[in-house]
Amino acid sequence: MHNLNENYGVGIMGLGTVGLGTATILKRNEKILSIRKGGKIELIRVLEKQTEKARADLSALGFEPDIVTDDFGLFLATPGLDIVVELMGGTGVAKDFILRALQAKKSVVTANKDLMAIHGKELLTAAEENQVDLYFEASVAGGIPIIKVLKNDLIANNIQSIMGIVNGTTNYILTRMYDEHGNFNDVLKEAQALGYAEADPTADVGGFDAARKVAILASIAYNSRVTLDDVYVEGIEKISNHDIEAARKLGFVIKLLGIAKEENGEIEVRVHPVMIGTKHPLASVSDTFNAVFVTGDAVGETMFYGRGAGDLPTGSAVVSDICAVVEDIKHGVLATQGCTCYMQKPIRKQEDFVSKFYLRLKVKDSPGVLAAISKILGDHGVSIASLVQENGNHEDASLIMVTHKVKEGKFIKAKEELMESPVVYGIDNIIRVEVY
Amino acid sequence: MHNLNENYGVGIMGLGTVGLGTATILKRNEKILSIRKGGKIELIRVLEKQTEKARADLSALGFEPDIVTDDFGLFLATPGLDIVVELMGGTGVAKDFILRALQAKKSVVTANKDLMAIHGKELLTAAEENQVDLYFEASVAGGIPIIKVLKNDLIANNIQSIMGIVNGTTNYILTRMYDEHGNFNDVLKEAQALGYAEADPTADVGGFDAARKVAILASIAYNSRVTLDDVYVEGIEKISNHDIEAARKLGFVIKLLGIAKEENGEIEVRVHPVMIGTKHPLASVSDTFNAVFVTGDAVGETMFYGRGAGDLPTGSAVVSDICAVVEDIKHGVLATQGCTCYMQKPIRKQEDFVSKFYLRLKVKDSPGVLAAISKILGDHGVSIASLVQENGNHEDASLIMVTHKVKEGKFIKAKEELMESPVVYGIDNIIRVEVY
Repeated sequence: MHNLNENYGVGIMGLGTVGLGTATILKRNEKILSIRKGGKIELIRVLEKQTEKARADLSALGFEPDIVTDDFGLFLATPGLDIVVELMGGTGVAKDFILRALQAKKSVVTANKDLMAIHGKELLTAAEENQVDLYFEASVAGGIPIIKVLKNDLIANNIQSIMGIVNGTTNYILTRMYDEHGNFNDVLKEAQALGYAEADPTADVGGFDAARKVAILASIAYNSRVTLDDVYVEGIEKISNHDIEAARKLGFVIKLLGIAKEENGEIEVRVHPVMIGTKHPLASVSDTFNAVFVTGDAVGETMFYGRGAGDLPTGSAVVSDICAVVEDIKHGVLATQGCTCYMQKPIRKQEDFVSKFYLRLKVKDSPGVLAAISKILGDHGVSIASLVQENGNHEDASLIMVTHKVKEGKFIKAKEELMESPVVYGIDNIIRVEVY
Repeated sequence: MHNLNENYGVGIMGLGTVGLGTATILKRNEKILSIRKGGKIELIRVLEKQTEKARADLSALGFEPDIVTDDFGLFLATPGLDIVVELMGGTGVAKDFILRALQAKKSVVTANKDLMAIHGKELLTAAEENQVDLYFEASVAGGIPIIKVLKNDLIANNIQSIMGIVNGTTNYILTRMYDEHGNFNDVLKEAQALGYAEADPTADVGGFDAARKVAILASIAYNSRVTLDDVYVEGIEKISNHDIEAARKLGFVIKLLGIAKEENGEIEVRVHPVMIGTKHPLASVSDTFNAVFVTGDAVGETMFYGRGAGDLPTGSAVVSDICAVVEDIKHGVLATQGCTCYMQKPIRKQEDFVSKFYLRLKVKDSPGVLAAISKILGDHGVSIASLVQENGNHEDASLIMVTHKVKEGKFIKAKEELMESPVVYGIDNIIRVEVY
């Protein structure tokens, strides 16, 4: 059945967290992998600038330390090298090395979301031209199978929407703020101390990491190229304890969601904090866990949950891609999973998004204020679904409202007029309300 | 890139709920499927005894009614037939027809869990011998991708455990009992009225449907043949409102779980009601939804959630299998996904299972009773983690205990001695406590 004599040579570029996780799995699960794939999958080369550290790390795992090199030419020329795994990150050298590996007819596996979100099409085309594979399951949501799931397992569906908690850092922060009433800055510091957040947290906290992942997911789900620039992005920096408590009272939790939809041939793609009902499956996705909630016209509601980062979880996705390449090599069918962006659909503008909105205002505490605010909202077609007034210090009051569904263009105009109203002292926050 | 001239002919055997769902998807999503697969996937033949109903149903969907036949010979001889989809159910005629289709070199897609749980190996071997595909994603958990996920996406892992809510009927009943305090018999009648439970509910309520699915999942996860007979099975018939309320007080919900584990080279596989902590992701899987919680040594905890039954959700899995066959035909790589049971591992006996136990006893209401019961448990190595006594009618009392982890062999002996004790009037229920 299986030809057990086959050997498949793997080279890893970049021996950081995920690189070491991948090496660990290839060593630890060597036997079961060779049973499952009918051949030995062997790490035979590692490209890493910090050669000494890499040699020590690999020795500790039971590999020969001399498989390490810092010379890409030597790396690529390794005899028996079938599969190149790119785990360096970044969009400069990584892109160059991947292209050169593809040109040398090596199949490539990458976990590089930045690269795939920006240069995915170019790289997939290069793989196809060179008749080799390029797999990138680990680039979105770590160990959770979602790219192949969208491409293959849910292929029968018109995907109606994707809602993903795809950034562990922000999910950790929001979970701690909700469960322990921590404030944003303290929890961010705690996350940094635990290694869950970078020293410069902008990419995570600002929503940009999630935006890259959502661009990749939308491209696959809608068979149309969506890049980072197409994604509307807001981060979680403005979420305060006041918002968290208001959410709790309203029966919501706050999550940073990446959302992609297709309606009337337009793709809508955005990342921002969202209030979601506590009974929704995404509401119970806590701490650094990720989950992608996919609704298809046939399958209905599905959710894929797991660890979105980390050495072994991300390594699990990398090794599953390595095995997919092995399968393709074995059957001589490389380059069958090229770019799936067969169409180019327009991207919906922010003003055409439709949401409910949570709106927290500081207003003058006097009779007639509510009438004035309702009028401004009503003039722009924004109707109020619920409203709570919290008294302040005799001079001002806090007004918390949730609107009915409305186009953002209308809502923005209402907001601008509110800001000019003499009874409105300030808009404390605005958060979209998505699933109830 | 794609050769758009290819046509792929599909024949469906059995036009019941899932058959009609599959036909609906093939018609409704015909265009996007042909874009994604680079060829037209066409339903060209239907085998169905109730020909008149089938013709009317297909006409309503926009198919030619004359594609219906009740003659298997005619069905199989249809020119251009590439893929046979078996949706008749049962293990008699269905097995015969699948074998004859495989021998005629047709690839087969089936949603038949009974057949795969009992004759899976024989059928997969027949497919391999005839150099065609046999896919069965829809046989477990309806629209949720789980078979290909275990085979491919989680291939890097030694699977530590699988815990699945894989029967919608029982999950619906337990959800209603918990949310609305309904009793078992009333909720079962309600489920029957809604079409969620069969007139004879034994297969669902008794845990046998779940057992078939768990046998399939365990076979795939552990690369070792597990059949229905290997599965320890208990149903939910004995769950009372008293147990539900006790669970609520203890911070648990009750679910019917299919569990598979591998430890020390032994496979443990069982289906029974379980108390799980309310914060566990499986706890919020409500109504008829299914979910499979998989823990792997690399990926950690993952969960796959969605609709476990229904025309379109199950049809989604069937059509994804059809597309997988199309892909294999296109690249000339049929019969590459044969039986993956490369080993034969022993099945663990019930006495060697390890669990915590919830135990509800009716006892004599007098001093010294607790000491007597604790002694019996202690003599067999069963220690009590928590205990609540609820007073009864002066003569008896209800004792609710949760034990620490213990081997079932020891627990069963303790239970037998308890039943003979003069201070124990009866054992009302015993439920395993699995994840907290």
